[in-house]
Amino acid sequence: MKNRAFYMTDLKKLEMNEIGMPKAKEGEVIVKLEYVGICGSDVHYLEHGRIGDFVVEGDFILGHECAGAVVELGPGVKNLKVGDRVALEPGVTCGQCEFCKSGKYNLCPDVKFLATPPYHGCLLDYIAFPENMAFKLPDNVSSEEGALVEPLAVGLHAAAQGGIKLGDRVVILGAGCIGLVTLLACKAYGATDIVVVDIIEKRLEAAKKLGATRVINAKQENVRDVISLLTDGQGMDKVIETAGSEHTVKQTPYLVKRGGTIVLVGLAAKDIIDFDFMQIMFKEADIKSVFRYRNLYPAAIGAIADGKIDVKGIVTHEFSFEDTQKAFDYVTDNKQEVVKAVIRMG
Amino acid sequence: MKNRAFYMTDLKKLEMNEIGMPKAKEGEVIVKLEYVGICGSDVHYLEHGRIGDFVVEGDFILGHECAGAVVELGPGVKNLKVGDRVALEPGVTCGQCEFCKSGKYNLCPDVKFLATPPYHGCLLDYIAFPENMAFKLPDNVSSEEGALVEPLAVGLHAAAQGGIKLGDRVVILGAGCIGLVTLLACKAYGATDIVVVDIIEKRLEAAKKLGATRVINAKQENVRDVISLLTDGQGMDKVIETAGSEHTVKQTPYLVKRGGTIVLVGLAAKDIIDFDFMQIMFKEADIKSVFRYRNLYPAAIGAIADGKIDVKGIVTHEFSFEDTQKAFDYVTDNKQEVVKAVIRMG
Amino acid sequence: MKNRAFYMTDLKKLEMNEIGMPKAKEGEVIVKLEYVGICGSDVHYLEHGRIGDFVVEGDFILGHECAGAVVELGPGVKNLKVGDRVALEPGVTCGQCEFCKSGKYNLCPDVKFLATPPYHGCLLDYIAFPENMAFKLPDNVSSEEGALVEPLAVGLHAAAQGGIKLGDRVVILGAGCIGLVTLLACKAYGATDIVVVDIIEKRLEAAKKLGATRVINAKQENVRDVISLLTDGQGMDKVIETAGSEHTVKQTPYLVKRGGTIVLVGLAAKDIIDFDFMQIMFKEADIKSVFRYRNLYPAAIGAIADGKIDVKGIVTHEFSFEDTQKAFDYVTDNKQEVVKAVIRMG
Amino acid sequence: MKNRAFYMTDLKKLEMNEIGMPKAKEGEVIVKLEYVGICGSDVHYLEHGRIGDFVVEGDFILGHECAGAVVELGPGVKNLKVGDRVALEPGVTCGQCEFCKSGKYNLCPDVKFLATPPYHGCLLDYIAFPENMAFKLPDNVSSEEGALVEPLAVGLHAAAQGGIKLGDRVVILGAGCIGLVTLLACKAYGATDIVVVDIIEKRLEAAKKLGATRVINAKQENVRDVISLLTDGQGMDKVIETAGSEHTVKQTPYLVKRGGTIVLVGLAAKDIIDFDFMQIMFKEADIKSVFRYRNLYPAAIGAIADGKIDVKGIVTHEFSFEDTQKAFDYVTDNKQEVVKAVIRMG
Repeated sequence: MKNRAFYMTDLKKLEMNEIGMPKAKEGEVIVKLEYVGICGSDVHYLEHGRIGDFVVEGDFILGHECAGAVVELGPGVKNLKVGDRVALEPGVTCGQCEFCKSGKYNLCPDVKFLATPPYHGCLLDYIAFPENMAFKLPDNVSSEEGALVEPLAVGLHAAAQGGIKLGDRVVILGAGCIGLVTLLACKAYGATDIVVVDIIEKRLEAAKKLGATRVINAKQENVRDVISLLTDGQGMDKVIETAGSEHTVKQTPYLVKRGGTIVLVGLAAKDIIDFDFMQIMFKEADIKSVFRYRNLYPAAIGAIADGKIDVKGIVTHEFSFEDTQKAFDYVTDNKQEVVKAVIRMG
Repeated sequence: MKNRAFYMTDLKKLEMNEIGMPKAKEGEVIVKLEYVGICGSDVHYLEHGRIGDFVVEGDFILGHECAGAVVELGPGVKNLKVGDRVALEPGVTCGQCEFCKSGKYNLCPDVKFLATPPYHGCLLDYIAFPENMAFKLPDNVSSEEGALVEPLAVGLHAAAQGGIKLGDRVVILGAGCIGLVTLLACKAYGATDIVVVDIIEKRLEAAKKLGATRVINAKQENVRDVISLLTDGQGMDKVIETAGSEHTVKQTPYLVKRGGTIVLVGLAAKDIIDFDFMQIMFKEADIKSVFRYRNLYPAAIGAIADGKIDVKGIVTHEFSFEDTQKAFDYVTDNKQEVVKAVIRMG
Repeated sequence: MKNRAFYMTDLKKLEMNEIGMPKAKEGEVIVKLEYVGICGSDVHYLEHGRIGDFVVEGDFILGHECAGAVVELGPGVKNLKVGDRVALEPGVTCGQCEFCKSGKYNLCPDVKFLATPPYHGCLLDYIAFPENMAFKLPDNVSSEEGALVEPLAVGLHAAAQGGIKLGDRVVILGAGCIGLVTLLACKAYGATDIVVVDIIEKRLEAAKKLGATRVINAKQENVRDVISLLTDGQGMDKVIETAGSEHTVKQTPYLVKRGGTIVLVGLAAKDIIDFDFMQIMFKEADIKSVFRYRNLYPAAIGAIADGKIDVKGIVTHEFSFEDTQKAFDYVTDNKQEVVKAVIRMG
Repeated sequence: MKNRAFYMTDLKKLEMNEIGMPKAKEGEVIVKLEYVGICGSDVHYLEHGRIGDFVVEGDFILGHECAGAVVELGPGVKNLKVGDRVALEPGVTCGQCEFCKSGKYNLCPDVKFLATPPYHGCLLDYIAFPENMAFKLPDNVSSEEGALVEPLAVGLHAAAQGGIKLGDRVVILGAGCIGLVTLLACKAYGATDIVVVDIIEKRLEAAKKLGATRVINAKQENVRDVISLLTDGQGMDKVIETAGSEHTVKQTPYLVKRGGTIVLVGLAAKDIIDFDFMQIMFKEADIKSVFRYRNLYPAAIGAIADGKIDVKGIVTHEFSFEDTQKAFDYVTDNKQEVVKAVIRMG
């Protein structure tokens, strides 16, 4: 078996290299990857070489949304067997710090997250991975869907942080990939009235197709007025910001109902934003935020298997492993058009 | 306008009488009833004249599952108008006790609940009812569905008490009306694997049709063994008891997973039941119970309107108002066959 | 019995008038007031004639922190008797809207709150008040303490919104009246390490006396550095902002720990504030806010009776009813010195 | 350094042996034990050789309540240093199963718990232990108090499971060691009215001394009547069963208030108990249970350091390490008298 990996060797440049086969340590399995999704963060690293304090140094393998098949078991593996298809949860945590022990492992300071420097990603044929972060896919969930569990988990965590429950009325700001998985997640959590806002018509069409009750093109309609009209001036139970723009973050206090919740998911370009806290206090609204996700892979896979969530609906482009450079180039140049591109591995 | 009411005048005997039109007090509306569902408790009062400490004295109007159209507004009504169709939440609470003030109004000791002595029910043409307990139905929710919101709310409260969330695996004991609405509710709350148990094949077929992942006929299969097999010996995340039999209540500790939750919904004939608390403690399982419901009508109506819950699917029989005696006779004599019978009002 | 009331007749001007005795309606009691606390909002109305959209029009009675003795029972009163001493919870809510029914009655849009225009306050001898908002004081809780339950309830709600629990480390920004009651509340909720920040030494001494583990004078020490040092760079579990200054609101994201909670209590003069949301998102911190309080009077009274909370410790000044004008003048002119002034009624 | 250990060599027989020094693996520290508490389970193993499915085979070291000083650091230890005094949380969990990852590590099926066969306990001079389960004691918390954190954590978990909050009224059934630490815990969580029930006068005196508001000797008073009287027939917010007798478990439904919570802590001799579920359902009461504890050592240590909890108050007997056999004999023969005996190590 040969193991090929795509390395980022310079800004915007990827190069395929053959590397050695990984070795499974205690509790690990070797997974032959079948699908890898391209995330905005992968594209950002390739374009800019860094995200905040995380700086790419030397050759670097991108990719953290993935699924594949188990081809080998390391010592002590108990629950998987060769041939099982699995989705990999990309953050391997310490299991021992106060965050891990209290169930908030997404805040573990010692997490090793795929494609977050200095840890390589999964754009390669074979990877060694801890069994406890490799979740078995049932027969009726494809490996492509398995790779999409990662972005879906962000949407599910957003819905969970927002306490979305049956009957909630929700407005989602932004209809990019994260906005759309948040839409799927809110529906699965029971929201019955979901308005999606964006400024790109194509994305709004996607939102409509994926089940939004109503969409608002913020270039054509005044979001605040429409939400007010739809809710008799009360505002929405939950407001989820996924666009990550200064403008949309600032808009949230005016869209939320008394006693409601704002969830911040999108990372804005600006750290510091003018915000109307008086609205928040008068409404006694909560503000929650989302840092990755936790404990959601089994639920996500269950919901896909059950037909509750059609995650495939977000895929707009597919490339072969050999065309990885082409795939990244395309996504980089067509950010508004691409919702989710995936790479079909060798 | 004339107002006709069916009175229970003796055990098993109903009689239609003409009565005066109700008068709308401050904050009340007059509703012309369009559908009234027959509940097991109505049938029980008619057969036995009492449920526990609640004793029927004198002529008594049954019925508490209902919907209709607003025909008149009392003083101070703000949110409804003539012509609105509404589902009535049958428990009118005090709004001032510690239970009401803390959001658990279903435990209000001063509740006036339709068809719970000494308060009459709604098997009549016109009723005066507080606006705040009359929930507007959107155009795409029929009045028949509106009447079914009441039993559905019990299922939703069971799911809420059980903390049902996306990806939960649930076993529901009993596939009568409450078992089936609990099934609908668990699905709407995100459960992805729902096993329903009963001993009557027809009910299990209904469960299957309404979305159960798997059904168990407890006469043919060993429930404990099947659940163990389905869950690798772990048990189900949530166990919801709706059958109300001693046997099924006793069974719950063996079916639940470590850290899971048992929800008791069905009232058993026996007050005191042998129960394996050692299992509960070893598993650190929770036991929750259900007394009616609270704050669920808007979510229920939203979920029906949205298509998330097809509550009509539980109706097996329909009668006209004039045939009310016939309806009750039929239900009394065919308890195993009837899931839900409704009366189409005049 | 004569009933005297102090009216605000102009900015900064109060005038005593004799008025008629109140009449107890259904469910109401007549209370002879014994103590009334002066709140910052009372002073603000007297100085400026308005708070936001609430504008004083015509002669107006201030005061909403109060306790007294029941002297007469209206019809239907069930739980109180003449002679009972009671603390009055000043917001009388509708009991019927969705907020009231779900336990968040502090968000009731139809609340009638003492001394919030157009509703008069309690700076008078006798008042009629609903029994369900008049909480009986046990023998070992004085009427003065009863009047202090109102500000204490704000602190308790802040602690509750912050989810303060045993072992939490908390920093409270601001050591005015609300900062100090929040300190008392956090201690009662189990916080074991409470740092209080202010710029007025006298207030910090008060905080120290009331149980702060450590105080920081923000004029002399860098708050961020000290908190970082005290927590090995991790930040505090909970950050409660009571100062209501732009500066302190902006400071909160840097003081909170990963996964921690910020609670906003103080109303800042500025509606819109620059805020570092990137910190919030990186830490997945929650932001909660406080609008009055709900369901806390019984717990507050219980905690005072039990000795868990020594609320009297916040009183710095006492005046007689006749000296009400003098009392308000003094408080207005000595805002930094006065923590809490109370008026001993006739 | 020599390492002495007390082995249970037969029923009721202990024998001191010298053994090799432990070796610190990755992430472990060597701790010289200073205090070890004797738990009822230790005594039970010594008397009967088993608890349920856990059977003592071969020579076995008892003891799991302990604290001591770090004398050596293994590789990779980050937060402790030689000389630190630490309390050891005796259950070392896998950190990777679904229970560990979701914060309920007490339910980890692969836990290695001190003195639970086949894992030896800590009645020895030196032990190797994972750093992340060794909690540093501040200077003002003694090692004796450190050893008492273990039973205290059970009480704290009981209070947490019961959702004890400020102002709660609580009845605790049983005033043995676990009843008393539950009392301390409930006070620390804010309960303001705590009634303790037992049949042994000496224990009730201890409860009184540790802060019970009232005690009931169930031999002299009818518990149900007294609780009813104290609560105007309403029952207590929370009922915590620590006695582990069939009688007291059966009593709980009659003592709890509508909407209240029962917490089961004591393991009854009988697995299966007659229980009035009709009461539970009519009151919509919750039943929670306690299996060890989780995430509570830091809070417990903080509360002891802060003076919120005086855990030393439960110690009634102290023995030297050399007198371990004598200690166990005494405790075995005087179960009603001994609340907590501790062994002062070499």
